[in-house]
Amino acid sequence: MRSLLLVAHGSRREASNEEVRSLAATLAELAGLRFDQVDCAFLEIAEPSISDAIEEAVRAGADEVVVLPYFLSAGRHVAEDIPAEVERKSREYPKVRVRLAPYLGRSKDLPRILLSLSDP
Amino acid sequence: MRSLLLVAHGSRREASNEEVRSLAATLAELAGLRFDQVDCAFLEIAEPSISDAIEEAVRAGADEVVVLPYFLSAGRHVAEDIPAEVERKSREYPKVRVRLAPYLGRSKDLPRILLSLSDP
Repeated sequence: MRSLLLVAHGSRREASNEEVRSLAATLAELAGLRFDQVDCAFLEIAEPSISDAIEEAVRAGADEVVVLPYFLSAGRHVAEDIPAEVERKSREYPKVRVRLAPYLGRSKDLPRILLSLSDP
Repeated sequence: MRSLLLVAHGSRREASNEEVRSLAATLAELAGLRFDQVDCAFLEIAEPSISDAIEEAVRAGADEVVVLPYFLSAGRHVAEDIPAEVERKSREYPKVRVRLAPYLGRSKDLPRILLSLSDP
């Protein structure tokens, strides 16, 4: 069973966290056969934490968890905090493949969708 | 003459600001006939400011400036600060059309490119 975890920073503004939860729900609809489960997690402030969300996925039967950082730039969170958490949970669950995907800002499709947004 | 301005938050980490500058350069290459000029600006910390970048575009001959917020969620910056700046410059240059595009997090293409990033 494959699980996708969209990881955002987390905001004091609850509407921003809700935007992330709603996006995860859309991803779940689009995922088709790629993922059996899609959820979101937050680095700070909001719930669930990355650790709790990975535990929940494993409890639900996941043998692969893909962690996808919903971040635009490779600051400390993307370069250090999220990989450290992935590493820690990988050691905790050696039978589960916990894999880190590239962060959103690395997508080669970004320039094209930015140009689309600029259309009147 | 049409100008596109990619507006990011600005970071103390100069590499993040460079990622934005590099993205603006890629947008310039892809823009084709849609924009004669593409540049970036920052809300805080980094240079140029939104105000300075719009002034520069007008000085270069722009009669339309499209401001595109490179943000994932509609926090105060997206909901208030950037629109206020666009409004202020519109009043300052009544002959120039300064237009605010939707912010990146609103793109309907985001779910699809997130799923692409999750592929091994």
